Amino acid sequence: MEKILRINTRTLEYKFEGVSDELAPLGGRAFTSRIIRQEVPARTHPLGRENKLVIAPGILTGTPAVNSGRISVGAKSPLTGGIKESNSGGTLSQKLAKLGIKAIILEDKPENKSKPKVVFINKDGVAIEEFPELERKGTYRSAERLFERYGDKVAIMVIGPAGEDLRLGASIQFTDPKGRPARAAGRGGLGAVMGSKGIKAIVVDDTGGAGVEIADKETFKAASKRWTEILQGHPVTSKGLPSLGTASLINIINEAGALPTKNFRYGRFDKAKEVSGEKMVEIIEKRGGVVKEGCHPGCIIQCSQAYVDENGEYITSGFEYETIWAFGPNTTISNLDDLAMLDRMCDDLGLDTIEMGNTIAVAMEGGLIPWGDGKAAIQLLKRVYLKEDYLGKIIANGASFTGKAFGVERVPVVKDQSLPAYDPRAVKGVGVTYATTPMGADHTAGYAVCQNILKVGGDIDPLKKEGNIEVSKNLQIATAAIDSTGLCLFVAFAVLDTEDAMETIAKLISAKTGKQISVDDIINLGISVLKDEYSFNYDAGFTKNQDQLPEFFLKEKFPPHDTVWDFTIDELQAAKVL
Amino acid sequence: MEKILRINTRTLEYKFEGVSDELAPLGGRAFTSRIIRQEVPARTHPLGRENKLVIAPGILTGTPAVNSGRISVGAKSPLTGGIKESNSGGTLSQKLAKLGIKAIILEDKPENKSKPKVVFINKDGVAIEEFPELERKGTYRSAERLFERYGDKVAIMVIGPAGEDLRLGASIQFTDPKGRPARAAGRGGLGAVMGSKGIKAIVVDDTGGAGVEIADKETFKAASKRWTEILQGHPVTSKGLPSLGTASLINIINEAGALPTKNFRYGRFDKAKEVSGEKMVEIIEKRGGVVKEGCHPGCIIQCSQAYVDENGEYITSGFEYETIWAFGPNTTISNLDDLAMLDRMCDDLGLDTIEMGNTIAVAMEGGLIPWGDGKAAIQLLKRVYLKEDYLGKIIANGASFTGKAFGVERVPVVKDQSLPAYDPRAVKGVGVTYATTPMGADHTAGYAVCQNILKVGGDIDPLKKEGNIEVSKNLQIATAAIDSTGLCLFVAFAVLDTEDAMETIAKLISAKTGKQISVDDIINLGISVLKDEYSFNYDAGFTKNQDQLPEFFLKEKFPPHDTVWDFTIDELQAAKVL
Repeated sequence: MEKILRINTRTLEYKFEGVSDELAPLGGRAFTSRIIRQEVPARTHPLGRENKLVIAPGILTGTPAVNSGRISVGAKSPLTGGIKESNSGGTLSQKLAKLGIKAIILEDKPENKSKPKVVFINKDGVAIEEFPELERKGTYRSAERLFERYGDKVAIMVIGPAGEDLRLGASIQFTDPKGRPARAAGRGGLGAVMGSKGIKAIVVDDTGGAGVEIADKETFKAASKRWTEILQGHPVTSKGLPSLGTASLINIINEAGALPTKNFRYGRFDKAKEVSGEKMVEIIEKRGGVVKEGCHPGCIIQCSQAYVDENGEYITSGFEYETIWAFGPNTTISNLDDLAMLDRMCDDLGLDTIEMGNTIAVAMEGGLIPWGDGKAAIQLLKRVYLKEDYLGKIIANGASFTGKAFGVERVPVVKDQSLPAYDPRAVKGVGVTYATTPMGADHTAGYAVCQNILKVGGDIDPLKKEGNIEVSKNLQIATAAIDSTGLCLFVAFAVLDTEDAMETIAKLISAKTGKQISVDDIINLGISVLKDEYSFNYDAGFTKNQDQLPEFFLKEKFPPHDTVWDFTIDELQAAKVL
Repeated sequence: MEKILRINTRTLEYKFEGVSDELAPLGGRAFTSRIIRQEVPARTHPLGRENKLVIAPGILTGTPAVNSGRISVGAKSPLTGGIKESNSGGTLSQKLAKLGIKAIILEDKPENKSKPKVVFINKDGVAIEEFPELERKGTYRSAERLFERYGDKVAIMVIGPAGEDLRLGASIQFTDPKGRPARAAGRGGLGAVMGSKGIKAIVVDDTGGAGVEIADKETFKAASKRWTEILQGHPVTSKGLPSLGTASLINIINEAGALPTKNFRYGRFDKAKEVSGEKMVEIIEKRGGVVKEGCHPGCIIQCSQAYVDENGEYITSGFEYETIWAFGPNTTISNLDDLAMLDRMCDDLGLDTIEMGNTIAVAMEGGLIPWGDGKAAIQLLKRVYLKEDYLGKIIANGASFTGKAFGVERVPVVKDQSLPAYDPRAVKGVGVTYATTPMGADHTAGYAVCQNILKVGGDIDPLKKEGNIEVSKNLQIATAAIDSTGLCLFVAFAVLDTEDAMETIAKLISAKTGKQISVDDIINLGISVLKDEYSFNYDAGFTKNQDQLPEFFLKEKFPPHDTVWDFTIDELQAAKVL
């Protein structure tokens, strides 16, 4: 029987409880958003006693279905003030599922600032231990110590100094199959929620766990086989992502004139080639790193890599397109080694790379450091390691906060969350997602880059308004559902282009749970997730007036296309399931 | 003929223009809010090119009617993101009026950060001069230099280092009859708007000005005589305020159990007597300061003073109840000399005292300095003088920002503006005003302390809900009207208790303009001001969801009354003119 683990971080009591009929069919984002909606008062302070941190594997996580090992982390976001689901890879999700744990819910908070605590979970139960030496330690060093303490086989989710210090840009890092804390539930400052509860890390050992129950093994096996074929049959999931990782997008988006350059001024970066996926792979191959690997067992897309320095020493992995863009074209830094170091530092400090790249661009805008100066950016980010450094505190609070600290006007955020790597004036479908998703600016919430640029799942002009509201709306629904299954979002490339893909996912879920569901049921699940999220945000004080991009996108023409953002707030409402 | 002076702060061009029929009857807040509503796009960045700073004397300003010399400053607020009118005393308002200038409107902003500029206005026109030596100078030193440059007779409005540095807590300071920049348009960060436009000071010399035209001199004279009698006939305006200043409220509000102590934890401060108005006067008399003086010629209330140090040297004036409370009971600092120094530093830095007192309490909450430590508070505030001090930058951005910088939950703000000196759980009428006024938490927008505590103009239980929505609503309307006349808000004490007072104000306005208006017209003026303000805020993204106090007021019982804040958002909407 699946169970929910509730931990009171004030009393350090915990209990396992059964799963209600209402919650039983939910997983991942559907589960986290339902709990937040039902149990967290919408107007409460995100760092207060009443907020909860919900950690939930997806519906299919722990099964043999490929690419099903993602995890959802939910809470009221300290960054946006709204609801947040942040999705990560790593190995913890599958281990939790194999222990029969449907979700962990961290509740309440310690009365006073206390020493960092570690929650250890295995088949026998839960132990909560103080671990003073991890205080303000980076996630790499922390993971090392935790593997020493709990053994090589465990999976870890851990915050860095940023989360402990309650920074609004703080992430939660997850260890990958090689034990590196390079996978992140990055967005929305959830690391600060974990920090506010005094929990430095959660460590899971599934040795001897019962594993995931599958109701109809034969049907599951057949569906699982077809599922593997679907992913292996699509060029993006079988060739594009494995060969260059997501960084393949640098040249593609630059070519499309949609690569936000110098804090969203231009759509092409003259040094794009120097930070492209092709260049990254060339460097990795020359230096003896690893070109492709997965973030969890059972991943066949293998979009990750190990980027190494000139001596072949590991620097970082999960070196994504969005990270390279945020620190690179967006700040005009063009040295890939600098970008890798910035990525590594974010993972180690426990900070969201998209938020920090935008923050550094805003700091450059404010004259704090020169445009394009990678070494200065590294020095700036280093200040977050210092306990009482006020500039470090400002930076780690993200772009909106840093803009106010330095009187900078040009701050690309929606609901105080920084915009990702696709200019909304040149990829209007994803712009609709930025403006309207309950998450704040987030490309993963409805990735219309597919239809706008990649021409996967449709062909919609990225520069015109026509069709972009509808495509974003449909993608937002589908994404909310996918995020609930535990499937990696990248399966969408294949799903959008394969006729029986959604049907196959429905079969996998039906066979696993023993309850027949249809493709329509999956769509309805996505709709219900969004409704939970909208209604939480409404009660938290959000209305349609927050569903819009900053003014400068409406005014400033974006070269080379010279388009502006031209959706009104009222037009944008049509992208929401209301 | 009255005229409007528009200054383009980018091109440094200026022009005088006639006043339209629509704007002619307006003054003060009615004028500033109408211009902001009509000319500033609601979603624009407050520090951007499209925001405007509007400076308008009241309808009666410059006439011989007593206590009519106040000025309104309006803009989109960098602190709240909504519309703002901030009201000040000082001598500039009357001088502008006597030059026939109905308002100054600062538009646009310089392309690049430039040397501070001074706008000098006299009967011959306008001169805009660079004044590099004033860069980051305090307002006291700046005023001294400007008097040297432009002569003793001028009036000055000037920003300090905080405004130049675009801080969200920045005020605009006005010189009083003794040339001290101790009067402030304090709230909402308007000093940052002036700073963003590169204007350090506006200097007005009315020598040889035409004076204010009065259409019906005889009627005006009679009404003016009656007006003086009304103010002299009420105990608060003739005795209470002149004898102890507003600081007389320390003992009264403490006695009422409504004095927010230690960041809004308790209603009584055990050391209230040490920071009371009685104590202040005792010290001033012993040291040879000045117990009562006015903030502008023609003031007969004389609530100001000159507080001096042990050697009889001037420290500060306009040492208000709210300032003493903010730095005193609210932080548990109980040394009046320390509080006077904090007031002086705020005036000199160009910072709002209410915002800064709350900010220091939040900093204490975050463990930055100890509770009650006046010397530490002074040292903390001093950091705002340092150009590149990041802690100074944080502090000067106010309480909400400082709370996020240090991970503090307990931050008493509405619409990001700090709460003033009356706990909303023990003075519920003023709590309704905090929650619902378009200004963000502001006691002056509807001062129900009158009816709740002072029993002026009615008697409404401060601890119950009954009647408090209505009283706040009516006061908000009346205040919007009074703020438009140029009359000091303190006339309200006498007006509320005197039957023919509103009628007398209507006569004064009618006689001055030559257009008959009734008491109903004045009320309608107040309503129209609020409607301009609400509609601006709505377009800026505010809805009823922002019209509420922070959660802790709804949860935490406030001793000694043990009441909580119990109005719902929907109940509060009834306090608004919708």
